[in-house]
Amino acid sequence: MKEVEVKASTKSYTVYIGGGLLARAGERIRAIAPKAEKAAIITDDNVDVLYAESLMASLEKAGLTAVKFVLPHGEESKNGLGYLAIVSFLAESGLSRSDALVALGGGMVGDIAAFSAATYLRGINYIQMPTSLLAMVDSSVGGKTAIDLPAGKNLAGVFCQPDAVLCDMSTLESLPENVFRQGCAEVLKYGILDDAKFFDYLSEKGLGFDREYVIARCIEIKRNYVLADEFDTGIRRKLNLGHTFGHAVEKLSGYTLSHGESVAIGTAVAARAAAKMGYCSEMCAGKIETALKAFGLPTETNIKIDEAMPIMLSDKKRAGSLVNIIVPETIGSCAIVPMGVEQMKEFFSKGL
Amino acid sequence: MKEVEVKASTKSYTVYIGGGLLARAGERIRAIAPKAEKAAIITDDNVDVLYAESLMASLEKAGLTAVKFVLPHGEESKNGLGYLAIVSFLAESGLSRSDALVALGGGMVGDIAAFSAATYLRGINYIQMPTSLLAMVDSSVGGKTAIDLPAGKNLAGVFCQPDAVLCDMSTLESLPENVFRQGCAEVLKYGILDDAKFFDYLSEKGLGFDREYVIARCIEIKRNYVLADEFDTGIRRKLNLGHTFGHAVEKLSGYTLSHGESVAIGTAVAARAAAKMGYCSEMCAGKIETALKAFGLPTETNIKIDEAMPIMLSDKKRAGSLVNIIVPETIGSCAIVPMGVEQMKEFFSKGL
Repeated sequence: MKEVEVKASTKSYTVYIGGGLLARAGERIRAIAPKAEKAAIITDDNVDVLYAESLMASLEKAGLTAVKFVLPHGEESKNGLGYLAIVSFLAESGLSRSDALVALGGGMVGDIAAFSAATYLRGINYIQMPTSLLAMVDSSVGGKTAIDLPAGKNLAGVFCQPDAVLCDMSTLESLPENVFRQGCAEVLKYGILDDAKFFDYLSEKGLGFDREYVIARCIEIKRNYVLADEFDTGIRRKLNLGHTFGHAVEKLSGYTLSHGESVAIGTAVAARAAAKMGYCSEMCAGKIETALKAFGLPTETNIKIDEAMPIMLSDKKRAGSLVNIIVPETIGSCAIVPMGVEQMKEFFSKGL
Repeated sequence: MKEVEVKASTKSYTVYIGGGLLARAGERIRAIAPKAEKAAIITDDNVDVLYAESLMASLEKAGLTAVKFVLPHGEESKNGLGYLAIVSFLAESGLSRSDALVALGGGMVGDIAAFSAATYLRGINYIQMPTSLLAMVDSSVGGKTAIDLPAGKNLAGVFCQPDAVLCDMSTLESLPENVFRQGCAEVLKYGILDDAKFFDYLSEKGLGFDREYVIARCIEIKRNYVLADEFDTGIRRKLNLGHTFGHAVEKLSGYTLSHGESVAIGTAVAARAAAKMGYCSEMCAGKIETALKAFGLPTETNIKIDEAMPIMLSDKKRAGSLVNIIVPETIGSCAIVPMGVEQMKEFFSKGL
């Protein structure tokens, strides 16, 4: 088992990465929230049938009264009404300020459950138990909680760090191969952003990489950005590589494209645009595209720039009239480039 | 004009108390949020017709594009769907992270608008412009944001301090006298909690008190509790004097009793119970009841203890199986007494 410490300004916590964490989650949560009497599991219908029973048994064995709320799977559930249903469920289940919430599932569950925990009674303990590669390396660490609004993804939320993150490797075994592959878009992102050697390792190994090592390395890189900029006003924005265009693709597909696939397309578009605009070499963009393809990820889209622009302009990363776009410079280094509307349109047009 | 500085750990800001603040709000908000291009006014239909036009003109004069969202007045609007409507409105109006929200109205508007500002794009600037006595001395300062859930009041929210609070004395002139009187329940609370001389001043002056002085003194006392315990885990709980039973009364009345009237009843019940249980003298309880009555506030209820108990037990101030009840000891000093279910039932029964 590996551990990554996250000493954020608002809370310090540990990310555990290893096997068998689910079955022993109860005792760990007991130690993290010693005054808790109840624990609420928030999950989706896919994950529920696989892991909720084992988690529930572990919580009850540790002396906690466990209750469970199951969302329909899929990004569409991460909405305002889902949020209100969860906080109402917590209230009706009588959870107090010292009780705990466990987010068991992928990024959708993690985001909406964490927002619920962060706001129910103005904040109760919560533990992330990500069951997908994407959630392990991305959304479960760093305290960004969110729901989607009709106008776009992640438009409401708060910053609220979890009290612990338990990444149980064994849950990845039930993950369909294509979903695992989709998560690799975010894994590759960390290499492009910060670590050329790690990028080369991933390009060489493909899907056969050492999971515990790779997940821990991604979390370390993410942790460093989170600690440098907990509230996402500066350097942490680099983690949005591929996301501005990616969110537009995801929305325009009616969420039939997954977050990982959308980010893969967004990253490829940003890389091609960066090369054409002279931010990076053609070779750099080529390596990024090749690596994405090696993981079976999409790099092309037939979305038109005029469809994507309004969505990108409503993206929350906007500050005033400029939008911060993350642009690859070399493998292992990216820049934050504030762009006006016309500049953005030109940039992304070049990447299509 | 008086100013009270609030140097909270998460944000420092100023509370301004004086006349004519509304008409000059634009320039002040410009200074507070220098990067803002847009400002969203959140208000209710009562306040809208009185003050929104003047505020809007002031914002536009200061170079801000102003948009407005109007809620129906009354506590029933402070719910989950109202919250979702506000954040969706902010998204559709294209507000960015550097833009600002202005909460113009009483406590209902202040709570739900602040929760919206605290969560839209994970937090934008917000300015409280309380237009009722209650909101000025209570909810607008201290960063408690909230919505109600079907299970009870203020069950979802976050701690998020405002960027400024503007208490325009002239808005109190349009406040119906009975609403002003209701706000005096919270004014008296500060005297009971912390300042016997202030309590005596209020008892002597009645409704003719010096408004600027009294409001500033209440905000100072509240500020001290907020700074000592920003996240409400200890001494700040004293501000809940009269609120545990008060919330139950308010809910059981179907919100036909105002917050102030409910708190007045809750305070009188707590005072009588405290005297009967030996926490304070009969004279202390008598002085509290007399003062409440002098302001024309109710002190009696025909609610049964068995109706109130389930609501008090779902109150968010509960930590585990004990509920923290605020009990007067003398005028100017109260204690936090953690009570179990049976103890609570006995206590409040004695006060009915």
